[in-house]
Amino acid sequence: MVENSKFPIVHLINAPENPLKTIYLACRTCYSAEYPYKIWEKDVEPEKMLKLVGKVLASGHHSTIEHCQYIFTISGVTRACTHQLVRHRHMSFSQKSQRYVTEQGQFEYITPQTVKNNGLQEEYDRLMVKISGFYEKMVEQGVPAEDARFVLPNAATSSLVASLNLREMIHLANLRLCVNAQHEIRKLIKLMCELVVEKDPWLNEYLVPKCEKNGFCDEIRSCGRFPQQVR
Amino acid sequence: MVENSKFPIVHLINAPENPLKTIYLACRTCYSAEYPYKIWEKDVEPEKMLKLVGKVLASGHHSTIEHCQYIFTISGVTRACTHQLVRHRHMSFSQKSQRYVTEQGQFEYITPQTVKNNGLQEEYDRLMVKISGFYEKMVEQGVPAEDARFVLPNAATSSLVASLNLREMIHLANLRLCVNAQHEIRKLIKLMCELVVEKDPWLNEYLVPKCEKNGFCDEIRSCGRFPQQVR
Amino acid sequence: MVENSKFPIVHLINAPENPLKTIYLACRTCYSAEYPYKIWEKDVEPEKMLKLVGKVLASGHHSTIEHCQYIFTISGVTRACTHQLVRHRHMSFSQKSQRYVTEQGQFEYITPQTVKNNGLQEEYDRLMVKISGFYEKMVEQGVPAEDARFVLPNAATSSLVASLNLREMIHLANLRLCVNAQHEIRKLIKLMCELVVEKDPWLNEYLVPKCEKNGFCDEIRSCGRFPQQVR
Amino acid sequence: MVENSKFPIVHLINAPENPLKTIYLACRTCYSAEYPYKIWEKDVEPEKMLKLVGKVLASGHHSTIEHCQYIFTISGVTRACTHQLVRHRHMSFSQKSQRYVTEQGQFEYITPQTVKNNGLQEEYDRLMVKISGFYEKMVEQGVPAEDARFVLPNAATSSLVASLNLREMIHLANLRLCVNAQHEIRKLIKLMCELVVEKDPWLNEYLVPKCEKNGFCDEIRSCGRFPQQVR
Repeated sequence: MVENSKFPIVHLINAPENPLKTIYLACRTCYSAEYPYKIWEKDVEPEKMLKLVGKVLASGHHSTIEHCQYIFTISGVTRACTHQLVRHRHMSFSQKSQRYVTEQGQFEYITPQTVKNNGLQEEYDRLMVKISGFYEKMVEQGVPAEDARFVLPNAATSSLVASLNLREMIHLANLRLCVNAQHEIRKLIKLMCELVVEKDPWLNEYLVPKCEKNGFCDEIRSCGRFPQQVR
Repeated sequence: MVENSKFPIVHLINAPENPLKTIYLACRTCYSAEYPYKIWEKDVEPEKMLKLVGKVLASGHHSTIEHCQYIFTISGVTRACTHQLVRHRHMSFSQKSQRYVTEQGQFEYITPQTVKNNGLQEEYDRLMVKISGFYEKMVEQGVPAEDARFVLPNAATSSLVASLNLREMIHLANLRLCVNAQHEIRKLIKLMCELVVEKDPWLNEYLVPKCEKNGFCDEIRSCGRFPQQVR
Repeated sequence: MVENSKFPIVHLINAPENPLKTIYLACRTCYSAEYPYKIWEKDVEPEKMLKLVGKVLASGHHSTIEHCQYIFTISGVTRACTHQLVRHRHMSFSQKSQRYVTEQGQFEYITPQTVKNNGLQEEYDRLMVKISGFYEKMVEQGVPAEDARFVLPNAATSSLVASLNLREMIHLANLRLCVNAQHEIRKLIKLMCELVVEKDPWLNEYLVPKCEKNGFCDEIRSCGRFPQQVR
Repeated sequence: MVENSKFPIVHLINAPENPLKTIYLACRTCYSAEYPYKIWEKDVEPEKMLKLVGKVLASGHHSTIEHCQYIFTISGVTRACTHQLVRHRHMSFSQKSQRYVTEQGQFEYITPQTVKNNGLQEEYDRLMVKISGFYEKMVEQGVPAEDARFVLPNAATSSLVASLNLREMIHLANLRLCVNAQHEIRKLIKLMCELVVEKDPWLNEYLVPKCEKNGFCDEIRSCGRFPQQVR
């Protein structure tokens, strides 16, 4: 059995060395006659860079932040969660294949908190053991892994390498930090944002749910934190 | 229980009225001084259009076919299959949500042929019934659908509206008609191609596995139909 | 010489037969247990469809409108304008090539209103004639068209086939109908929106500058129509 | 006047620290039960990594190389060239704006070799001086930069920050190193590839024109280096 508190496991294995300088370079290149490599060679005060970058981002000119790219390794997320995650078409994914990797012994799985709260953990675990047993039986009898996995549940975990640029990271935060997002993907994106902000604290103000960015809530069911948009 | 032969269910609900004329327009616009709307108004012999389009496509100038778009409805495909399908980032998807749609009674599922062949259908069905029972119990006790679905297997079916342009359709065919593709997605893409070709038979020669297009096989395990590329 | 009022020339050569029904299908597929092709076969009241679609779009669930695709032919836009236009990466383009199409006689060009207003039209025209003359001379002496075009100005017009889905159409409107957009692209997008709305008037409320959508202005220099966002 | 040999000016300002290890991680994550962060922590022999990566890339599984991203600064390329470059929709661009940056004095421009070869350099230069003079006159009389630039020629240079991942870099090489590509973009991409290969020489074999990759030529006019594909 698996402790939920340990999951998901997220590592930031590559981040831009200096996102502020990179974004400043991109902004200045648009609005200046100088060669960009000369802008890059300059030593500019962080405050000056922050001011320009803040102004440009506030005006919605977000292509300037696409040059900053992050690579994450992710484990201990369910296939329910990854099926949502891979819908983000501006991200790149390399995901553990259930076709090529045969599960050995009990597969790893996640139990939602609401299942625990309703006193159903034990029965849930028994079902997972039963599924695992039949999976193994099928594999032993010669059913290929890609077919045996038809019985594996959404709760089974997966692993990925996922990379994305800062524009998509902010989009992910805007969308998936909302309380209406599924709890697991919300937790995952929160962890990813924390790793980004740990390295560059000034990005904290951008990695927020959409309501904080817009000043209003556009969800059908609102949590009430921000006023709903009148239409 | 569900008869595999009936699945997946695919309908082409929208297709370009005249893809040949549209592609001809796109090609001519690139290489001609005429206003494109005047090219569009002309009545050109299909043979002449086919000749130009064939030449342009053979030379790899595939942006000219992006203007032709197809909309499909798809049902009776497993979540295993849709998890692969939605990885295609040039497609648009609207998929039945397991978060918002609560299963009523036994959920629909697919049994792989290899499970039947190994005499495991009955045990497979019993497991599906058991999973369905526990799903229902959870929902009754107040577990939200988005959490109850953690026990639903990959075998559970889904429905989608999927749209894509002809360039992506050809890419899908190249990739997923290969015998190494998962059998279910291969069957799905084959059905989609058949619907496209039924309407416009001249497209048949493009909707082929990559080996037929390239004249060689680049797979690690080859089926032997085409020689493997020497590197 | 060319009359500005005639340009750009925009035709909508293909549009979804029934965008409302298509979007309704996409929305219903997400939130219903029914097979999508059965939803498609139903005869639903337009009012009921409009209500659901409006609710879904207001909540930002815009992937549902990607299935509706439009194809335009565009002529009489400058290369200055098309260089901006092709930055839209969710669109598909087939553009008249200056490498493969040699200009015959005086090339077509646009004069900005501010040039006319400053009494510079005549001198502007003389420069265009001069450029055209040298272009012709180069071509006659054997300079290939792809090199001779180095002297052609931004003002020279181009032609394109451009296709895009409704999500991108709305994004274009949000961005390019702003008074801060370049006047030519603004005029172009306005014409495109009018053609879309002519066919489906209910889309009018979505094809607006971003300020109308958001209720605030995020531009650095505001026209004052909406209050600027306080940050 | 500008010496062609100096242009374009390309710098690689950010590259993945270890693309081989990153791609190995991506490949292993797909085909292994291990957590990816544990794969990342391992010290694997370069030969072993090269072998796996080579096998995966040869089989066309190119999503695994999307995690490696490169940032370039580019100057001294014409607007003719950048209009082509920005058609690559998997790249990110920040480009010097002719709307917001007013040219000061003679604008920088490129002369194609064929113009020189035909003894037309002097007349070409005189035209550029003339255009520049009228541009300045317009600006002085109050025509905004975004309109004055209508007279600027394709030959005028631009600057960009451009970023792309390795998959797109290989695609660019396949397409634009072909002798049929425009000479300027071909030179640009060649310089970009050299900078990538300088850092990681093992990538050299992938950064080749498409004919070298495919073993045949699919161009309409072939240079004869590889046999044309029979269809």
